[in-house]
Amino acid sequence: MPAGVERRVEELLADMSLREKLAQLVGVWLNVNREEGVVAPLQDSMQGEDVRFEAFARDGVGQITRHYGTSPVDPKQARSALAGRQRWLRDNTRLGIPALAHEECLTGLAAWQATTYPVPPAWGASFDPVLVEEMGRRIGASMRSLGVHQGLAPVLDVIRDQRWGRVEECISEDPYEVATLAAAYVRGLQSTGVIATLKHFVGYSNSRAGRNLAPVHAGAREVADTLLFPFEVAVRDAGAGSVMNSYAEIDGVPIAADDHYLTRILRDAWGFEGTVVADYFAVAFLHTLHAVAEDAEDAAVQALSAGIDVELPTGVAYLTLEGRVDEGLIDEALIDRALRRVLRQKAALGLLDDDYDPEPDGQEADLDDPASRDLARRLAEESVVLLTNDGVLPLTGRRIAVLGPNADEVAALFGCYSFVNHVLPHFPGVETGLAAPTLLEALREELPGAEIRTGRGTGVDDGDRSGIPAAARLAAESDVAILVLGDRSGLFGRGTSGEGCDVETLDLPGAQQELADAVLATGTPTVVVLMTGRAYAVPGLVGNAAAVVQAYFPGEEGGGAIARVLSGAVNPSGRLPMSMPRATAGQPYSYLHPRLGGAGSVSNLDPAPVLAFGHGLSYTRFAYADFTVEEEVVAGEPIRCAVVVRNVGERAGAEVVQVYASDRIASVTRPVAQLVGYARVELAPGESARVAFDVPARLLSFTGRDGRRVVEPGEVGVSVRRSVADVVEERAVSLIGPVYAFTGDERRLTAVSVERDT
Amino acid sequence: MPAGVERRVEELLADMSLREKLAQLVGVWLNVNREEGVVAPLQDSMQGEDVRFEAFARDGVGQITRHYGTSPVDPKQARSALAGRQRWLRDNTRLGIPALAHEECLTGLAAWQATTYPVPPAWGASFDPVLVEEMGRRIGASMRSLGVHQGLAPVLDVIRDQRWGRVEECISEDPYEVATLAAAYVRGLQSTGVIATLKHFVGYSNSRAGRNLAPVHAGAREVADTLLFPFEVAVRDAGAGSVMNSYAEIDGVPIAADDHYLTRILRDAWGFEGTVVADYFAVAFLHTLHAVAEDAEDAAVQALSAGIDVELPTGVAYLTLEGRVDEGLIDEALIDRALRRVLRQKAALGLLDDDYDPEPDGQEADLDDPASRDLARRLAEESVVLLTNDGVLPLTGRRIAVLGPNADEVAALFGCYSFVNHVLPHFPGVETGLAAPTLLEALREELPGAEIRTGRGTGVDDGDRSGIPAAARLAAESDVAILVLGDRSGLFGRGTSGEGCDVETLDLPGAQQELADAVLATGTPTVVVLMTGRAYAVPGLVGNAAAVVQAYFPGEEGGGAIARVLSGAVNPSGRLPMSMPRATAGQPYSYLHPRLGGAGSVSNLDPAPVLAFGHGLSYTRFAYADFTVEEEVVAGEPIRCAVVVRNVGERAGAEVVQVYASDRIASVTRPVAQLVGYARVELAPGESARVAFDVPARLLSFTGRDGRRVVEPGEVGVSVRRSVADVVEERAVSLIGPVYAFTGDERRLTAVSVERDT
Repeated sequence: MPAGVERRVEELLADMSLREKLAQLVGVWLNVNREEGVVAPLQDSMQGEDVRFEAFARDGVGQITRHYGTSPVDPKQARSALAGRQRWLRDNTRLGIPALAHEECLTGLAAWQATTYPVPPAWGASFDPVLVEEMGRRIGASMRSLGVHQGLAPVLDVIRDQRWGRVEECISEDPYEVATLAAAYVRGLQSTGVIATLKHFVGYSNSRAGRNLAPVHAGAREVADTLLFPFEVAVRDAGAGSVMNSYAEIDGVPIAADDHYLTRILRDAWGFEGTVVADYFAVAFLHTLHAVAEDAEDAAVQALSAGIDVELPTGVAYLTLEGRVDEGLIDEALIDRALRRVLRQKAALGLLDDDYDPEPDGQEADLDDPASRDLARRLAEESVVLLTNDGVLPLTGRRIAVLGPNADEVAALFGCYSFVNHVLPHFPGVETGLAAPTLLEALREELPGAEIRTGRGTGVDDGDRSGIPAAARLAAESDVAILVLGDRSGLFGRGTSGEGCDVETLDLPGAQQELADAVLATGTPTVVVLMTGRAYAVPGLVGNAAAVVQAYFPGEEGGGAIARVLSGAVNPSGRLPMSMPRATAGQPYSYLHPRLGGAGSVSNLDPAPVLAFGHGLSYTRFAYADFTVEEEVVAGEPIRCAVVVRNVGERAGAEVVQVYASDRIASVTRPVAQLVGYARVELAPGESARVAFDVPARLLSFTGRDGRRVVEPGEVGVSVRRSVADVVEERAVSLIGPVYAFTGDERRLTAVSVERDT
Repeated sequence: MPAGVERRVEELLADMSLREKLAQLVGVWLNVNREEGVVAPLQDSMQGEDVRFEAFARDGVGQITRHYGTSPVDPKQARSALAGRQRWLRDNTRLGIPALAHEECLTGLAAWQATTYPVPPAWGASFDPVLVEEMGRRIGASMRSLGVHQGLAPVLDVIRDQRWGRVEECISEDPYEVATLAAAYVRGLQSTGVIATLKHFVGYSNSRAGRNLAPVHAGAREVADTLLFPFEVAVRDAGAGSVMNSYAEIDGVPIAADDHYLTRILRDAWGFEGTVVADYFAVAFLHTLHAVAEDAEDAAVQALSAGIDVELPTGVAYLTLEGRVDEGLIDEALIDRALRRVLRQKAALGLLDDDYDPEPDGQEADLDDPASRDLARRLAEESVVLLTNDGVLPLTGRRIAVLGPNADEVAALFGCYSFVNHVLPHFPGVETGLAAPTLLEALREELPGAEIRTGRGTGVDDGDRSGIPAAARLAAESDVAILVLGDRSGLFGRGTSGEGCDVETLDLPGAQQELADAVLATGTPTVVVLMTGRAYAVPGLVGNAAAVVQAYFPGEEGGGAIARVLSGAVNPSGRLPMSMPRATAGQPYSYLHPRLGGAGSVSNLDPAPVLAFGHGLSYTRFAYADFTVEEEVVAGEPIRCAVVVRNVGERAGAEVVQVYASDRIASVTRPVAQLVGYARVELAPGESARVAFDVPARLLSFTGRDGRRVVEPGEVGVSVRRSVADVVEERAVSLIGPVYAFTGDERRLTAVSVERDT
């Protein structure tokens, strides 16, 4: 922080009234017409009456909440309106401090007509940080062009329970993969000057029985070793500027009131200097939901003390503190602590500059330009996971039946934080504003010579069986059937996946399994395409369909991406970022389990998934050779390994080379295997590449019995695998010397190098 | 410990070789013919070759494992054989120390022909510590008469997940109920001189996804506030003499290697002076299953260091330590620490007395005497829970169809730790050795005038639907149908309930739901009787059957007990010791959840059970009046309350008066309600009683933010409820003064007084 900025902040702070200070710590949310539906949890009961901006912000305001993301507004007009607000703040408040504008942006800016990318599990399936970073950059550029300063993404929750509706917002079941892809997103977004917000810090994905916001039953070691890692990487390696608290409580303590995570870990241990913002209404929830605060004032005091700097979406708790400083309810130094962070961030954004211009350039805002669409297409193509294939793919038949509830459904392309599924359902009749061909439309374009017939069969979850016989008849009369099943993403019970759309079993929703059974029973070779937000338990489809494709929600170009994979124009290269469970229940499950968390000879149940983390097929074949690993390494030093991968098939394709480590014996139980490095490598037929990994000791470390982060001497298996369940080759490494205790400054990420031999 | 005993122990110890010392720390298990099946987890791989007693025990032996409980042996002959072993030890080992003989005894001594009582959930349903204590006394007396010194019961695991197969061995979902009934069992058993063994210390019931032995994901506060309490009560209030470790790991640390629980909590904080025995093979499992030990020696060192004194069932790990003291692998003082505990216990049992007589009395061993059968009957009668009743009960019809897989099934009367289900399945052709009328047989006796016809319909889990039409026809031709459904208890996948018999969903096993649907569809009033080891999700039965009766496994007199409840000879008085879930999955669930663990407005799922903890109907009615609670209490002082309950119906019956507390606001999240007192009160028609509760502050305490056990000032709701979901009346109590921090010596249990007004 330059000395001039520091001085400017301190001068401002010294000059501010308590009222002006508190105003900087809250947001204002305008035009939230509650008749038009709810986009935040308990919004209807928490938000209160609509406010007039000029009345609310007369002493300034910290943030403007979802100016673009609350209703479908024309981007150009809205940009002018936002600039008008900023000018009003500059000209009509005593201190003239502009607001920081934030928006949702998980799968692209959540605004009308903006490019909508694939959901995070699709990023996970791509194993491609380069494209994810590029996506972050494009999202950031569009936000920047609209005067938006902060985006509420990415989500760094590690998938722990497939029943949870928000799995579709998470990247992966593996914290190393989450860390690397989230860091890529952060770097991309922030390269444009837009602040990324890491959420949900921490533990949210681990809620009891997968019920949204239910308490997290986890020990301190599990949190430290599995859940915190992605956040540490995104803060320390990618320099994220903001963190949002998790709604969760862990072992009885709500994060929003826990200085252990928000201050001691995040700031004292990691050196985070940005802002911590509250998840919407999370401060007030300390009173109304968690019952750890007596009232809104108490909630505000606890959250500020723990380390929440900014209350969002508005100030229902923090604004109650006015006048309470004098009463001794709260120490003004806590308010100043938060305020300094806010003002420094505004200074860094240029908002405190004398020549701040709220509408810096006059460029036309095209929120869905061709380059962004192209990126959305490439990321979607890389994210399609070919789970099984008996040779039916690429498609060759002429008569094709395209069936199922998601075959011709635009909404099936998008997750619940897309504008289309998040906001537009409240505005019936408003167009999506996006070109987003469905899979059916894309197939018609991709296969112009094919005779395509179509039938929905059943809805996603309406249980309507009336269309099943007709769909089966179409399948029977075709050379091949493409059966497009899955979820409908939505909020708070309006979908089968998404925030507040949790499930109790992992059967496909509604009558979809019956539709699948009827189609499969025809004997026509059937390709099942899953457009889902989570991993369903579909062992019957995996076993019986001619091919199964997992696509998650692939974004506006996703229909075409899947179509091109099916036609063979694109060689599939996605890999599963989450296990596909065998049974309809049996959650929670993670591949990162110690031995007793797996197939136990002491339980009749076998939790092994039907398809493992990392699995995915290609239209070509890859062979591995020359796997080398250092045999002896001092504990605390990196482990280096390398392998040669060759495309031994007939066509170009990409392999995701995966390296896993297994700590054989340790003083605490350790996962049977964990991903410690990966590389996505495109190879022409016959081409090979030597891929080398320099795995830092940090990835083999854990919280020891005494609470310190350590690497213990002993034997570690290092392996190359096609999936966590499919070991190509494993070698033992001896870690020698004494126990290595971490200082915290050690390297966290694996360095990967790819040398091509063409 | 008298000084003389202390001296004797120290003299012995000073005289012992390392080999003799280690021998005292292990058991010997004879005649474990592995061809005849497995009764302990991984027994086949762990047990090794059968041993000859005289060879194994030439330097003495600490324990004799399951002399009666391994195969069907004639009690009288076996008693002589056991006495012979003891004489051999006295006469043929250098030190002449007899062995301590232990047996399983959860539902009665697990030996051939011994009285088999209802399973622990049935004790929970009875809410009757008096009968449970009497049961403990009778079990102890039978063991004592056979020369057995230690019983491996009771189970104090708090039910956390209905998918776990060992729910049938647990008493309740509520730790206070577990504590009081387990303490009663301990007092009863130990009053006969037999040592009770508290198991499984701690965390076992919380295993991931209900899979047996899977890791426990729980925080330190959850363990301290919910799971440890029953053990503390059984140690400190009931004086239990032995504790068995849990197989589980909690947050990465296996209990068998964790001195935090085994030494710092159990001994340092609670002052426990008895022995800690290993669950079978648990020491070796530190190597083979948990992978925290390099080999058996390392496992032995870790377990001894943590505080496991005796390895059971035999010495596969501890015996490897011979010769390793010299090598510095282990400090002999750790061996001596365990040995002192073992020798002091043997001294207290009289085993070190010069005049020790291994066969003290010549009384004929009747292991199933009439008084024990009578007790088994009374406990079974009190444990039957009438869940719903539209008036069909008591039975009045003449033509009765008795249907379902458990109607005429002896095994359905027993849990997996009964000799019948635990051992006899390996000895085909051997009689149960017990009179144990099935429900069908009991109904024929109870209703001599009725025309009873019967059909099985389907098996418990064979999925055979062929008998369903015939069963439905019988129902259609009858005035009333009694449909007896449920589990088959067994070990390691051989049952639908029991150790190693876990489930993924809570639908009834096999085709039982289809049988029920077919019978209900006839329109004949149907009484569903559930003989299960867990709470199944049967909302359809609860909603549509004329009556539903939950009986768990009711023991050898259970058929008659249920029959008498159905006939009206017995007025049902059981109350649910565990929630009956509404959905087929959604586990884990506990009624002891904070607000966000219940029906959440932020998840579409409602986890509220279909019938709540504490629910149960009667053939009479009870009214409450004059509920009084102190309005203001100093934090840390007890809360006193009282209520008058009156039988306002036509017949005698028992009400279980239940008092709950709700801490409204606390610094950590607290359960929405928790049981803090109960009283089972028998009342004649028109009779009333004033029931007063003196609730110690301990029950309102929790682990505060700083790790100390505290009661905080604030408002607590105190209520009388018919079940946790059915509030009769609630009053607010103000806890005043400063935060009360516990010393640990405070009273733990509620004092209850019942004043009758006849």
